[in-house]
This record gives sequence, structure tokens and C-alpha cells, in this order.
Amino acid sequence: VSTEGEQCGPPASPCPPGHGSCPPIVVWDEPFFQGKRHEFSTDCYSTPERGFSTVRSFRIESGAWVGFEHCGFQGQQFVLERGEYPCWEAWSGSNAYHVDRMSSFRPITCAEHGRSQLLLFEQENFQGRRGELSDDCPSLPALGWGGSAVGSFLVCSGAWVCSQYPGYRGFQYLLESDSHAGEYKHVREWGSHAQTGQVQSIRRVQQ
Amino acid sequence: VSTEGEQCGPPASPCPPGHGSCPPIVVWDEPFFQGKRHEFSTDCYSTPERGFSTVRSFRIESGAWVGFEHCGFQGQQFVLERGEYPCWEAWSGSNAYHVDRMSSFRPITCAEHGRSQLLLFEQENFQGRRGELSDDCPSLPALGWGGSAVGSFLVCSGAWVCSQYPGYRGFQYLLESDSHAGEYKHVREWGSHAQTGQVQSIRRVQQ
Repeated sequence: VSTEGEQCGPPASPCPPGHGSCPPIVVWDEPFFQGKRHEFSTDCYSTPERGFSTVRSFRIESGAWVGFEHCGFQGQQFVLERGEYPCWEAWSGSNAYHVDRMSSFRPITCAEHGRSQLLLFEQENFQGRRGELSDDCPSLPALGWGGSAVGSFLVCSGAWVCSQYPGYRGFQYLLESDSHAGEYKHVREWGSHAQTGQVQSIRRVQQ
Repeated sequence: VSTEGEQCGPPASPCPPGHGSCPPIVVWDEPFFQGKRHEFSTDCYSTPERGFSTVRSFRIESGAWVGFEHCGFQGQQFVLERGEYPCWEAWSGSNAYHVDRMSSFRPITCAEHGRSQLLLFEQENFQGRRGELSDDCPSLPALGWGGSAVGSFLVCSGAWVCSQYPGYRGFQYLLESDSHAGEYKHVREWGSHAQTGQVQSIRRVQQ
């Protein structure tokens, strides 16, 4: 029985007995863990080049990962923590256009849930009014952040995902402390598909 | 300049000057805050009965609310914290079937972000292995909760939203400390549309 704030029951065996060591991520080319299966333990620059034209379900056994719509870590981003993702709805969030594939992915190496800190700024290049976060924020407006946009971020530690709408809905953008010194000076630096500085929720990534 | 962990800049004026007091929730019958507009400060049992056949965008000015697919607080649930929701994707999350309406809604009165606590149990009726949470959890598997299902909940304080998939994706279910004593003995008690005990992420609601 656990009574610690963040712990949830005794650690479960990550894999069935006799399975040996578990790869961090297992993907299938059909939903609900059907069809052809492939295991990965490092970056995948292009799933088609590894023999997978589509990824329709997967399971993350360890660590936190980020998947991308296009090869080469481009396009929409999907932050993926440990668990089961049986179909597209499980990882897509509520993105405005349907993308039924994940063409590249890599680990999020700097994620550190218990020690994450980020600064946000009203304007680009760290100008204007600023705020500081060390906890998840499902609604920036509820904490007094005027307006629904952010101009720039400075990630001091850990990894964060910021989302377009409250409650972590809409497009999501990964912000990492070990990516170009944690500096995100302009909306264009949040990702190749980022078109708006609209951010209404931000949270820490759980490794 | 704010340096507190959870604060985000100085409190902004919630409404433009000269606007007077702001209603907690404002809805429009077209996306992007167009069309006919209506203000609410309490429960709405049926938006059609109030002259709204559809709700396509809204803005939450204060408090936390929960919206429902059907009248009478039935069907899919949408937890709505303060902010702007310009279109269906902003509040729907990644629910498995498209629902372009919100037919009833009410405030979440027991939400208390800084003081929320919940117990979760492997089996229904509070049986089996248990865990305790006082912080957001984007991945129950990452914290050692074996399997992807929860049997029952006991909400000690605050309000929580549990989601089907990691990262708060998929169907969401509101769990309140002031609703039948915070006891959710079986998946059927999480909501009229709840069909699965699959829960892989849980977080506190921000008032």
C-alpha cells in the first residue's frame, strides 16, 4: 500500500514473465496491437525506411518519447509517456487535422518530472511580462496570464509540453531544457508546424 | 515579475475596461465566437431549451466547468477550465466519435487545485491494490501502476479528471469529492457513457 503523493501502487513487472528485457517502444502497423510488430530502443528517423509505412498502435514500456507526423522529426508532435496507445485517438489529442501516422520518433532525454522549471514571456526574445512554472498548468488564464498567447519560453530544467487550448488539448509542442539551451525565442522555434503562439496549458513531461 | 512556482504573471483584467462584471461562461452558436451569443452564470440543463441548438465556441471567464454531450448532464464529459475554446477541437480532446455539440453544463464547485487528493483501487468497491495521488499523473504506468485499468476511486478532496490514454487523451471522466461522498465504486459510476475501466492518466482540476 503506497501513501506517497506521487506513487501509485507497487511497481509492476513491465513485461510478462519469461519475456526477457523489454524494448522501450513497440509498434504495430494495425490498431489494437495487431499486424506486423517492431521493437525500437533508439531514435527512428523514418518508419517507412524501417519497413513501416504506417504506425497504428504502440506501447511505450519505458521513458518518454516524442512522435512526429513526418520523417526527420518534422510536422505535428505527439508527446508519448509510458502506457498503451491502441489507436490513433490515443496519441493524437484533438489536433485540427487527422493524421493517421507517426513517421519518426525519438526519446525525450531531459524529462525529469520532479525537477522541472520553465519561464514564459509575453513577447518573443524573452521580452515583456514573464511568469515562472514548476508545476503543471491546465489553464494559463486561471493563473492570471492575460491573453491566450505566449511569445517565448526559457526551459530551465526538465521537458514540458505546451498546448493550444486549456486542459492540454489541441496542438502540442515539446519544449526541452537540453534543446538549444532551452531557448525558444519565437513561435517558429516550437516546431516545424507551429503557426500560432496560442498557448493555454503547459505541463511537465513524465519520464 | 513573478517568481512563485505556480503563478503566471500579474493577474490580468478578465474583461475589457468598461465591460462591467463578467459572466463565468459565454457561449456562441458558431465557431470562433461568431453568431448568437449567450451568457451563463449557473447550470444549464439543456442548451436547446435556452434557445441554443448548438454550442460551437465559448469562453470560460472564471471557475471550472464540465460540459456534456447530452441534456441533463449525460453522455460524454468535457472538463473546461478557464480560457478560450474557439472550436470543437478545443474542448473535445480526442474522443473516439465526433460530437459537435455541448447540450448541458454546470460548474465544478469542489475543484481546489492546491489541495486535491484521491485514492485509486485495482478492483471495484475499493478492493485490491491501491494507490494515492496528490499531484497530476500523465502516465499511471510510469508511476508503477500495473495494467491500464482502474476498478474504483475514492476522491478525498478537490476534483479530478481521469482519462483513457496517457497524456490526458481519449474519453475523460470527472471525479468530484462532493459527489456521492467522492465514492466511485465501479466504472459505471464515472459517467453515463463510461464503458471501460481503462484509465492511464489522472489530473487535478484547476478552479
